[in-house]
Amino acid sequence: MTTMNRQLVLRQRPKGLLAPGDLELVETPVPELNEGQALARMKYLSLDPTMRVWMATDSYLPAVPIGEVMRSFGFAEIVESKSPEYKKGDKVVGLTGLQDYTVVLPGDQRRFQKVPNIPFLSDTAFLGVLGLTGLAAFFGMEIAAPKKGETLVVSAAAGATGSIAGQIGKINGCRVVGIAGTDDKCKWLTEELGFDVAVNYKQADWKEKLRAATPQGIDIDFENVGGEVMQEVLSRMNLFGRVVLCGLISSYTKVDPGMASFQLALVKRLRIQGFIVIDFASRFTEAATKLGQWKMFGKIKDRETVVEGLEKAPEAINILFTGGNTGKLILKI
Amino acid sequence: MTTMNRQLVLRQRPKGLLAPGDLELVETPVPELNEGQALARMKYLSLDPTMRVWMATDSYLPAVPIGEVMRSFGFAEIVESKSPEYKKGDKVVGLTGLQDYTVVLPGDQRRFQKVPNIPFLSDTAFLGVLGLTGLAAFFGMEIAAPKKGETLVVSAAAGATGSIAGQIGKINGCRVVGIAGTDDKCKWLTEELGFDVAVNYKQADWKEKLRAATPQGIDIDFENVGGEVMQEVLSRMNLFGRVVLCGLISSYTKVDPGMASFQLALVKRLRIQGFIVIDFASRFTEAATKLGQWKMFGKIKDRETVVEGLEKAPEAINILFTGGNTGKLILKI
Repeated sequence: MTTMNRQLVLRQRPKGLLAPGDLELVETPVPELNEGQALARMKYLSLDPTMRVWMATDSYLPAVPIGEVMRSFGFAEIVESKSPEYKKGDKVVGLTGLQDYTVVLPGDQRRFQKVPNIPFLSDTAFLGVLGLTGLAAFFGMEIAAPKKGETLVVSAAAGATGSIAGQIGKINGCRVVGIAGTDDKCKWLTEELGFDVAVNYKQADWKEKLRAATPQGIDIDFENVGGEVMQEVLSRMNLFGRVVLCGLISSYTKVDPGMASFQLALVKRLRIQGFIVIDFASRFTEAATKLGQWKMFGKIKDRETVVEGLEKAPEAINILFTGGNTGKLILKI
Repeated sequence: MTTMNRQLVLRQRPKGLLAPGDLELVETPVPELNEGQALARMKYLSLDPTMRVWMATDSYLPAVPIGEVMRSFGFAEIVESKSPEYKKGDKVVGLTGLQDYTVVLPGDQRRFQKVPNIPFLSDTAFLGVLGLTGLAAFFGMEIAAPKKGETLVVSAAAGATGSIAGQIGKINGCRVVGIAGTDDKCKWLTEELGFDVAVNYKQADWKEKLRAATPQGIDIDFENVGGEVMQEVLSRMNLFGRVVLCGLISSYTKVDPGMASFQLALVKRLRIQGFIVIDFASRFTEAATKLGQWKMFGKIKDRETVVEGLEKAPEAINILFTGGNTGKLILKI
């Protein structure tokens, strides 16, 4: 008897939320295994916001082609093996796709990883806390470089990544404020996960609550959402704060031109950094010495646009904005 | 005979470009020096885009109060001294303000710095290449961390800061592309300063020219302008690119809501960083081990929302966007 494999195939790129017809459930026979192959049967599939991006557009991975099985991570068990690498009963995690079965090919270790049997870890932990969402929290918090006593705000805080990121913040001694969309989630964050405060952004006074929850301002924004929530968090950032762009889920299902630059920064892993030169005052002599040497040796050249007379200052300042100067604008007194 | 001091006093906060009445020229007598004081006479004043910000609003410095002498940097000479710290003829740079004279108070070294007599350096060099604009180029390029062979784009490239930043890029072995607003400026950049290409953004086809000038994409954006120019540069950024926010001059004289987040990032010296977890694949085992330990010792807790049945995947994916899950969303097969 041929075993059938149910697969969810991408038929069209979704607009907004997924609609009927975007993914189609089809059945195909599980192919006979060739030498070197193994058959994995899914036990658990990971459903992640990033899948909505994969359906819609090329990003950090190419979009899933129309007509192909939808890409996903999952946890599977080897049920048949003609491979020396796998034996029946082995457990694997990797890019399974949304389907019942997948054939594991020789040398597929980049796609699948065997998972050890650890008594106190459930199978699903390898998709969650130890999976890509937990790992995203881990590396995102590494980028955030939290310091003891700093205030961390996490959006989508009750999500798979946010909930772990906030707890890593607590491990690092931060004041942790979560933003979530129901009171139940907020309760879970504070009562079970140890968040200091959780704010329900669906309540009318959530901005005041966020303000009250962050009396020292915000040092780290672990950003999963974007849009209005992010703008509000940004407005409360402290000097030298860090904004870790992990996700911008509010703009995955609708167009948000205000988020375009951040989407770009996320997908291209950009680092955008503001600076003010006076912060470096203690190193001015060092830098001026270097600049002076470069100038002396002709490695850098400069030009000045000189305007004469104190009374000319107002109109001279304007030419900075109308493009009238080349090089440094100097007012000679 | 009393010496008079001409001063430009801020009378109202400018809208757009500076208009008559924003700064008023007044004359006041130079006060008699008290013991410990010195009198500095301005020779050169530095005119910088950031002054427009100081006139308008609190930022990294408080706004200049209405009725006070407009803040500026300048180069001055001590013309009279009752201070043991200064003698007649000493040259100083610092926060002079837009005026002819200023009294240097005891302990004013944070406001003024004596400049050495270096034969091959003009007085104005201490306001330009060795002044705050040159220093901004220096430290901004340090933040950019340029690597040999990378492509650096500098906006307002013929300005005091941009022209130095681009040359520091050349010193570091970068391909350097400048964006400026006249053909003369572009010519100066390429023919005298050694920029590889300069693009005049006032020409209709400047975006094509920028594209042609950056065949390998852009690794570093040394951003002085903001607005449309910045958006175009961002769209050509490479993976792991750096955007150094030095100035956003296009939004200093007009409101640009699209730049609000970047203005915030600039003034508050934020670091905004996008990341994708798969970039850290080589460290997954290390991180999963740590996460597993934290979970085992109860330092992190997790929760799962489990949906059963492959056919439920499409609607289950949607609850990620409608807030239906708490913790990790798992599809059980």
